[in-house]
Amino acid sequence: MPSITGPEIERLIQLLARLPGLGPRSARRAALHLIKKREQLLAPLADAIRVANEKVVVCSTCGNVDTSDPCVMCRDPRRDDKVLVVVEDVSDLWALERAQVSNGRYHVLGGTLSALDGVGPKDLNLDKLLARVTEGGVEEVILALNATVDGQTTAHYVTDMLSHTGVKVTRLAHGVPVGGELDYLDEGTLAAAFRQRTTL
Amino acid sequence: MPSITGPEIERLIQLLARLPGLGPRSARRAALHLIKKREQLLAPLADAIRVANEKVVVCSTCGNVDTSDPCVMCRDPRRDDKVLVVVEDVSDLWALERAQVSNGRYHVLGGTLSALDGVGPKDLNLDKLLARVTEGGVEEVILALNATVDGQTTAHYVTDMLSHTGVKVTRLAHGVPVGGELDYLDEGTLAAAFRQRTTL
Repeated sequence: MPSITGPEIERLIQLLARLPGLGPRSARRAALHLIKKREQLLAPLADAIRVANEKVVVCSTCGNVDTSDPCVMCRDPRRDDKVLVVVEDVSDLWALERAQVSNGRYHVLGGTLSALDGVGPKDLNLDKLLARVTEGGVEEVILALNATVDGQTTAHYVTDMLSHTGVKVTRLAHGVPVGGELDYLDEGTLAAAFRQRTTL
Repeated sequence: MPSITGPEIERLIQLLARLPGLGPRSARRAALHLIKKREQLLAPLADAIRVANEKVVVCSTCGNVDTSDPCVMCRDPRRDDKVLVVVEDVSDLWALERAQVSNGRYHVLGGTLSALDGVGPKDLNLDKLLARVTEGGVEEVILALNATVDGQTTAHYVTDMLSHTGVKVTRLAHGVPVGGELDYLDEGTLAAAFRQRTTL
């Protein structure tokens, strides 16, 4: 097919199409939108991406991404050093923060153990987790990992790894999602919710 | 809510969320993806957006966007000067080119007449269309406008505007979309398809 538009715009479309949530068609729409809103969107976005590219660092303490090291979570003096919430990914940290469920510190593993994908303990941010717990001051490690096979395998591994430190290790509850209907839930979730029922 | 991440990343998320097809949640995912794929995606995208911002121009002949003026469509010597395809938007031009339905030239109106949105003839790229047709050489104007009320209003207006030039004005056929099922089609489309049935 002959080129419809200049190679520069084609390249922009191709790069936008690699963003999660955008396919080839929506990337074209996004590129056109950018070009039309040049002053309000294209120029500011160019600037924001350049700044992000220059400034973003991975926090050497917890693995979060931020524009400073240590990150805003590790720096905040109002957070509770006694609680350490372990998550797979930065997006999980953001999700927990949006829900405002914990005032503790975080630790981002950067993935889960996966035999299929060849991800072993050395590939995760585990040494630093052990170091942080061994250092003292942490009383509870909350494993906020996904309820997938890989997430649960990782949870077992971390529990084992931390067993000699004497720290309390907990995991999130399984159960019926708020607003969820029993009829649409899988048997595993229903069984877990039944087992862990609470007194009213 | 206290900031989860640095203001630079927040700003990137806010700008990404203004792209069509991305909401606040997918913008966060896209931003994280960009940050993680720094070398492969973030830096090239920054570059592509900067280049687009510097180079993109609106073609002074047809209203297409390109990095050169006249655009690749108006420049191409193999295209047929006798056929002029009128579209609402650049995205429609791209859609027609992907379908490879026409070898003619294009003319982008930049919208449709809309009493509700206060879009009048002066707001569209109509003067230039009349000039191109009056200039001579065009034998057929194909109105490839959306089959919406505004699109059809605009088609009538353009037909009126061009009536004294003697050029042949046509519009796209209405009918059953390829792969479409009759049961799911609206009555207007069915009636149009029935009226304009063709002999096998």
